[in-house]
Amino acid sequence: MGVVTATTPPGHRTRLSPEQRRSQLLDLGVRLFATRSLDELSIDVLAEEAGISRGLLYHYFGNKHAFHEAVVRRAADDLIAQTAPPVDGEPLARLLASVAAYVDYVVANHEGDMSLVKGAAGGNDTLREIYEEARSALTDRIFQEDAVGEVIPDTAGSRLMVRGWAAMTEELVLTWVVDPAGVTREELIGAISASLPALVDVLP
Amino acid sequence: MGVVTATTPPGHRTRLSPEQRRSQLLDLGVRLFATRSLDELSIDVLAEEAGISRGLLYHYFGNKHAFHEAVVRRAADDLIAQTAPPVDGEPLARLLASVAAYVDYVVANHEGDMSLVKGAAGGNDTLREIYEEARSALTDRIFQEDAVGEVIPDTAGSRLMVRGWAAMTEELVLTWVVDPAGVTREELIGAISASLPALVDVLP
Repeated sequence: MGVVTATTPPGHRTRLSPEQRRSQLLDLGVRLFATRSLDELSIDVLAEEAGISRGLLYHYFGNKHAFHEAVVRRAADDLIAQTAPPVDGEPLARLLASVAAYVDYVVANHEGDMSLVKGAAGGNDTLREIYEEARSALTDRIFQEDAVGEVIPDTAGSRLMVRGWAAMTEELVLTWVVDPAGVTREELIGAISASLPALVDVLP
Repeated sequence: MGVVTATTPPGHRTRLSPEQRRSQLLDLGVRLFATRSLDELSIDVLAEEAGISRGLLYHYFGNKHAFHEAVVRRAADDLIAQTAPPVDGEPLARLLASVAAYVDYVVANHEGDMSLVKGAAGGNDTLREIYEEARSALTDRIFQEDAVGEVIPDTAGSRLMVRGWAAMTEELVLTWVVDPAGVTREELIGAISASLPALVDVLP
């Protein structure tokens, strides 16, 4: 919050509050999580990257488990924010934009994202909870009315189909990142987006 | 293999070979696996249900890990056999029959199936391998030519989409078994079957 003058080397004289320092370390943790599994994201790695002692990290986060939880929550919040559909536009165009942002997020954060999916499916309760919250936040959007009215009818049946569509999307994108199989980014985004109305339409 | 006469109490006088006895115990393990997670399927449970000693079970299966592996392989073989599509009929009718058999299999074997999916996703390499083999066996069928020719074109892109469709199907059926959300068995089977051509059709 201090006024930084032209003669102040940035980040050296300004004293951060503990909250600011913790938030800064969390940002670094999320960046490291993009290219590492959760197992590889140790307190040791963060201490080395941040250039501070392990003791100080334990001071900020309590323990490794709490640190992992904080990183995953922040990463989930980032995913939800980055995939927010534009406010204006036709429903399919808005869905395309949101799916494109999701594909780009997984490309940029593949290792961490894969490890979260595995951890959640493998029975880690905290990871599962954060994962389910994020997925609900992403899929609930689909049922929000917009300027042109309800796009997908909000019925129990269509909610079930959207849940299946979300699982399909996750599998498709995580597989495509490793092996695109000749499918371009635009084709992938187009197929995922078009399949949502196609899936809901097959309901009676 | 002995000739059983009218005066022979079935299963008492006939001496089973070790292979037959092991196969019988494996059958029992698979039946127990239908309503139990892998964690709950202990050697103790099997010993009690079979009325034999734990020592004999270790004799037949080596250790708990090998026993679990044998049960899961047998269960996967059962799933593949039970969902074999009929030889004759229109492609969509044959797909419907296969999907119906898959839904009924998951209904009958929910606990074990759920635990296999979790174990495979959670990083158990042996479970993951068996799970991937079974999924490949199920999805490879879709690309087999039949009397009316190739139904789904066998391209890298459509194989990617079918992989997504399989993930969607698994999520839909495992969710529906716990909470049908007003969707009938027939509607579920119809929606899953109709969504396959719909998904492949959205590819360019």
